[in-house]
This record gives sequence, structure tokens and C-alpha cells, in this order.
Amino acid sequence: MSAARRVAAELLGSALLAAVVIGSGIAAQRLSPGDVGLQLLENAFATALALPVLILMFAAASGSHFNPVVTLVDVVIGGRRWSDAAGYLPAQVFGCIGGAILANSMFDEVAVSISTTDRLSPGTFLSEIVATAGLILTIFLLSRTGRHAAVPWAVGAYIGAAYFFTSSTSFANPAITIGRVFSDTFAGIAPSSAPGFVVAQLIGGAVGLGLLVFFAPRAVATAEADALN
Amino acid sequence: MSAARRVAAELLGSALLAAVVIGSGIAAQRLSPGDVGLQLLENAFATALALPVLILMFAAASGSHFNPVVTLVDVVIGGRRWSDAAGYLPAQVFGCIGGAILANSMFDEVAVSISTTDRLSPGTFLSEIVATAGLILTIFLLSRTGRHAAVPWAVGAYIGAAYFFTSSTSFANPAITIGRVFSDTFAGIAPSSAPGFVVAQLIGGAVGLGLLVFFAPRAVATAEADALN
Amino acid sequence: MSAARRVAAELLGSALLAAVVIGSGIAAQRLSPGDVGLQLLENAFATALALPVLILMFAAASGSHFNPVVTLVDVVIGGRRWSDAAGYLPAQVFGCIGGAILANSMFDEVAVSISTTDRLSPGTFLSEIVATAGLILTIFLLSRTGRHAAVPWAVGAYIGAAYFFTSSTSFANPAITIGRVFSDTFAGIAPSSAPGFVVAQLIGGAVGLGLLVFFAPRAVATAEADALN
Amino acid sequence: MSAARRVAAELLGSALLAAVVIGSGIAAQRLSPGDVGLQLLENAFATALALPVLILMFAAASGSHFNPVVTLVDVVIGGRRWSDAAGYLPAQVFGCIGGAILANSMFDEVAVSISTTDRLSPGTFLSEIVATAGLILTIFLLSRTGRHAAVPWAVGAYIGAAYFFTSSTSFANPAITIGRVFSDTFAGIAPSSAPGFVVAQLIGGAVGLGLLVFFAPRAVATAEADALN
Repeated sequence: MSAARRVAAELLGSALLAAVVIGSGIAAQRLSPGDVGLQLLENAFATALALPVLILMFAAASGSHFNPVVTLVDVVIGGRRWSDAAGYLPAQVFGCIGGAILANSMFDEVAVSISTTDRLSPGTFLSEIVATAGLILTIFLLSRTGRHAAVPWAVGAYIGAAYFFTSSTSFANPAITIGRVFSDTFAGIAPSSAPGFVVAQLIGGAVGLGLLVFFAPRAVATAEADALN
Repeated sequence: MSAARRVAAELLGSALLAAVVIGSGIAAQRLSPGDVGLQLLENAFATALALPVLILMFAAASGSHFNPVVTLVDVVIGGRRWSDAAGYLPAQVFGCIGGAILANSMFDEVAVSISTTDRLSPGTFLSEIVATAGLILTIFLLSRTGRHAAVPWAVGAYIGAAYFFTSSTSFANPAITIGRVFSDTFAGIAPSSAPGFVVAQLIGGAVGLGLLVFFAPRAVATAEADALN
Repeated sequence: MSAARRVAAELLGSALLAAVVIGSGIAAQRLSPGDVGLQLLENAFATALALPVLILMFAAASGSHFNPVVTLVDVVIGGRRWSDAAGYLPAQVFGCIGGAILANSMFDEVAVSISTTDRLSPGTFLSEIVATAGLILTIFLLSRTGRHAAVPWAVGAYIGAAYFFTSSTSFANPAITIGRVFSDTFAGIAPSSAPGFVVAQLIGGAVGLGLLVFFAPRAVATAEADALN
Repeated sequence: MSAARRVAAELLGSALLAAVVIGSGIAAQRLSPGDVGLQLLENAFATALALPVLILMFAAASGSHFNPVVTLVDVVIGGRRWSDAAGYLPAQVFGCIGGAILANSMFDEVAVSISTTDRLSPGTFLSEIVATAGLILTIFLLSRTGRHAAVPWAVGAYIGAAYFFTSSTSFANPAITIGRVFSDTFAGIAPSSAPGFVVAQLIGGAVGLGLLVFFAPRAVATAEADALN
């Protein structure tokens, strides 16, 4: 697969991911006014179902990262080169911004609006660390122990759950954090909260990487992995 | 499998699909009056669960298209002949109309009622383009990169999510668009809105086809696909 | 596996199935008073999740029928002998009655109460025919076309959807219909409605059998099945 | 895998499990005030999705027990040694307590609060027996009949359903029962109720073990298991 195609896959996949997250948030907000719990359930339902599909869709083209922390961890453990990251990261960020605009447009909102939702607190900062570390373990610990085929569904399930078990609703992704700034709707995040979220996600990525190396120092097949325990 | 059996599979599968979508819409409307968000969640829950089952059921008989856009794309990329499409398309449309009548009857409604729900807007038009392009990528990009076995579940998950991440609730299928005209209930669409939806779906099909050819010019097995990225 | 063990598996599996359906109905009724749609969503959520587990659990012991119509169809197509059915059918009926008592007891209700919920109408009669025919196709059409491994999850998904797309909430099983008579709670059915439901289910079984024979006259492996279409 | 790593996997996995259960309970309580049914649905949704991911994550490291009853049954049937249990059990208990503190902290609650939710009744005692016996059958009956790969998803589905089909919301795990004492929120349990729950879970474990030995006296592969029925 050419480098251009890989980057295009990250761009389109990230855009669709952001469109799913933000679009279903707008739908939830409109359809279930005044019932925040039901809104988040609808938002999580859509995200948990769409994520595995998007991952399966672009797995062959780019590995379906859609997330700078995932790409950085993959570079550190030797799965990608730094030159790959140089193409992936901007594609992820611009893809997510494009997806926000697409979601706004699908719902007849103005194309771009800056979110006014302040989300930063000690609890959400800790939540983003936990959410991102868990996401890294979901992707790479499963891959390294011969459970690669389960990764797409596991990532969708993990994020669907993390919408509820964290107080931040689990962004766990700097690119989508930036994209969500561009929609003043249910899933948005104010520009003042975004940097704190990104810092927490980078810390979470480092925590996840440390745990990964501790639990699975090298990649093994299923049978071998199970025999070791 | 004889041609008659293939066409019968498309007819029955499309009828059951329409019965699921419209029937669960009627149930949702009756059981959760005044709570549109919960209604759509019930409708999406039923559809996301039933679609993989119907696809698995008739996969061996007809390939489980149930959707003219899917059949047309399959013809263009060489998976079916035009003569197949000539049998599939009418079966899909009449199947979906039959399914609407079946759903109305299961809920003791009059067998046929013409929907009065106007759905067309710039946002829903754009939504149907996105929804249909994504459906085409879900089906064919997964198939072409060795992830064929995941397609039934991925299609159900994708459509379940698209009920929420688009403003049109993702019809993404001209046959079911026509079928939904025949039920003046939750899932219905007014005859005046249907042609616009079908045009958007055909555009979406073309967009999906273009992206498919860009990302997967030819079909490859999983290992080969992954090795290329 | 001895005949006794097979019958015990049908007895216990049917009891657990009835306990899931009736128990989650009682929980839904208590926890979401006055919101029938949410009650049915909770009931369907629990059933769709538990069914695949119960089927996987007893598949090796008895084939996990838990349903007289399934056993009868299996006998007709040669998968079981009539002598098997003589053991299976009473086990299924008494298992479901036991499960109703277990559910009542888990929720501190009186152990046995006779339901007063009248459910019979032309729409629910038609619904039970459709629901049961679809269940037979789900089980046997998938098995006969090399998709055997997907059957447990497909059955759970199908029934979860059918709670909503039929007006009867899809009993689709004479044993559980009888069991549900013994709990005057959300999932119950009045003795006066039960015979009509059972008749519709038997008709649905015959319809499903006819369609099965039409679409898959004999069992084939996946590759062969797909090559034929 | 070294013993330290195995114990660390049980510790971290149990902590994350408790954080999911308790964290999503706090979110549900805050987001859906006054709607207990919807709260439990959100709680069950998050748990059913996260459990398979956590099990897949640590399967290669420790077998992903996260539950003293599971470890004890595994020791009795010869899958683990008593010396393993001596490491696993404290890790599970302290992990769940740590997870409760993590959940409280993610939601800006005080780090430790003792629950005041009384849960013990004849119905919940019976429920915990049933829930735990069913969990043991889900894990070990599937493993012993060649359906090992389905266990993670089956456990998630089973527990998600058992939140509703039991009156106790299915704790089914002494470690998480103790952990839940340390959070006076939705998922908490008063110290006075915890011992009764643990006793019921141990009884349930014994019942499950007895049924396991009856239905699957020894482990066999799928094909052999199916041929026997």
C-alpha cells in the first residue's frame, strides 16, 4: 500500500470516527432533550457499534489507528517508523476536524462552531489517563498475545464502556479531542479544556506502554501465550 | 442455486428486513410515546441485531444484498452480471413493500397506509450520501481485504450506529425507502421525500465505489492485505 | 452423552432460559415503572445476551433446543429421532415451568402465580407465526449452509430483535409459552391466550420448515454453499 | 509467565473490573437521576462490554479470573494449584478495593466511602447462588466442550443479562463484593450485606462445580463433544 493511500485511510477513517461521535451526540441531544443519561447511552451505543466497522474497514490500508497516541506507541515498540507518524498524525487531526464539520452539516447546523463545554477537572484528567492507558492495553496487549482478530470488536466494546466508567466520557485520543472543539454540541469540548485532555492522554499512553512491556515483553502466538501463564 | 431461488431469497430477505425496520418502529412508537430518542434506540437495537441474522440466513442463496445499490456496485466490480440485477432489483423493491404490509398487519394496523412523514432537507440528503457510501465500504472493503466473515455483523453494527450519526436515520437503501412509503408509522417516509432519498443513495453508492477502488483496487486475502500496509 | 444427560441439559437449559426471560421482565417492571418501552428494552437486552450463552453451554450435551418446535423440526429433517423428542419435549415444558418458579422466587414473589395478561389478537397470532418461522430459519438455514458457529449469537440477536419487530414480543416457543403462564408479571401470558400462541408457533414451525427445504434442500459446507449462489 | 506477573495481572484486571462496575454506576446515578431502570441498563451496558475486553487482555498472563470462586473451582478441577490460589485471591480482593478507590477518584468523589446500601434478602441470596452457578457453567462448561474462544464474550453477555434476571444485579464474585463496600454509590453494598452475598456465591460455586462435573466429566474438543450428544 503506498504511503499516500495509508495517509488517506487515516484521514478518512478519522473523519468518519469524528462524524460518528459528534453526529450521534447531536442526534441524542435533539431526540432526548433533558435526559443526559439516555443521550450518553445513545452516543455510546452508536460509537461502540461503529468503531469496529471503521477499524475493519481501514485495517488493511493503514492499520486503522485514527489516534496519535496509538501511532506513537506503535512507533516506540517498533511497529511503525517515525516517518509513518509524520504522515499519520496530521491526517488524524485534520480528519477529525473534517469529521466535525461533516457531522455539523449532516444535522443542518452551521458548519463550524467552537464548543463552550468546559470539561476539565481532577476527575476527568485522571479519567483520561485511565481511559487512554486501557485503550493502549486493549489494542497492543491483545495483538501481542495472539488475539489480533478480536481487536476491532474489543476496541468498540472498550470505548462504549468507557463512555460510562470514566467521568470524562473517555475521549482517549488527542485528534478527536481537537476535532470535538469544532462543534458546539453534545460531544464538544471547549478550547480551554482540550490541552489538559491531550496531556492526560499522553500520560495515559505512557502508562499503557509501560504496562504493555511489563505484561507482554514480546509478541507471541495464542497457544504459546496461554502455555506461559 | 437456481436463479429462481436466488430471486426468492432476495424477495424474502428484503421483506423480513422491512418488517424488522417498520415493525420495531411501530412497537417503539406505541411503547415509548413522546420519547423520540428512546423510540429510535429501540428501533436501532432491533435493526442492528436482526440485520446480521438475515444476511447470514440468505448469504448462501443470494449473497444477501436486499439493496439495489449493493447489487449495482457488485455488478460494476464484476461480482454479479447485469442479468442478475434484473432479477434482484424488482425482488428487493417488492420484498420491501411486502415487508411493510407484513409489519402493519402484525401490529393490527391497516395493511397499507401511505406515510405522511416529510424527511427531505439538505442535512438528510447529505446524510444519505454518507450513510450509503459507508455501507458500500463496509460490505466491499471488508470482503476485498479478507475480512469476509465479519461482514454480516459489521453491516448490522454500521446501520445501528448510522441510525444515530446521520440526521436521516440512515435508510441507505432505495428498496427500503420505497417500502417505508407504505406505512404511515414511525419508520415511514412521505412519497414526496422518497425520490430525493433515492438520488442521494445512488450518489452515495458512486462515492463508495470510488473510494473502494482507491483503497482496494483488487481483492486480496487477509495476510496479504495486512502485509501491504 | 447418555440420554439422561441430554434430557437433563434440556431441562436445566429451558429452566434458565425461562428464568432469564421472566426474571428480567420482573426487574424491568419494578425498576422502570410506567415506561413500557424501556421495560421491553431491558427485557430484550437481557434475553439477547443470555440466549447465546445458554446455547453454547448445553450445545455439546443436548444441542440446546429448549423449544419443542425446534426439536420437532429437527426430527422431521432427520437430525433427531422421535424417541429423542419423547424425552426432550417434557423436559422443555417442565424446565420452563421450573424456571418461572425460580424467577418468581429470586424476586421474592410468591413461587407460583397465574398470569392475567391477555395477549391474543390477529396481530399477535400472525406475529408468532412470523417469529417462529424466522427462528427455524435462523437455526437450521445457518447450520445447513456452513455457518454453524454463528448460530448461538444469531439466535440471541434474532430473538432480541423480535421482541420489538413483532406485536407479540416473540415467544416463538411452546415450552416457554406454558412456563410464562406461571408468573403473573411482565412476561406472563394468561392461560386463555396460551393455546392460540402455541397453535401459531406450530404453524410458524411448519412454514419455517417449508422455507428451509426450499432454500437448503441438503446441508453443505460454507464454501460449497457460497459457490452455488 | 512468572508468578509475579500472574498475580499482577489478577490485581490490575480486578481493579479495572471494579472501576468499570462502580464507575459506570456513579455515572448512571448522576446522569439519569430518579430512573433506576435506565441506571441499571447503563451500568449493565458498560459491564457487558468491558468484561470481554478485560478477559482477553489478561488471558495470556493469568487466565483472567478476577474472581475467587473461579480460581477455587479451577483449583478443584485441576487447572491451577493451591499455591496459585494463595497468590490470586488476595490480588483479586485488593485489586477490587483499589478499583473502587479509582472509580471514586475518577468521579471526584471522596476516595473511600463505606456503602450504606442494604441488599440482603431471601431473593437476593437465592439470586447470588443462581448467578454464580451460571457463571461457573459459562466459563468451564464452554472451555471443556471446545468453545474456549467464545468464553470472554460469553462471560460479558452472561453478566450483562444477569444484572437484570436476578434481583441482586448479580455480583457473583466475592472480591468485587468486598470492593463494592468501599463506594457509597449506585453499585455499593453495605458491610452488613456483604458476608451473606459471599456465602451465597460460595454455595453457587459449589452448585456450578457439581453441574459441571455432571455435564462435562472431562474436557473434550468441539467435534468430539458434539458427536457425543
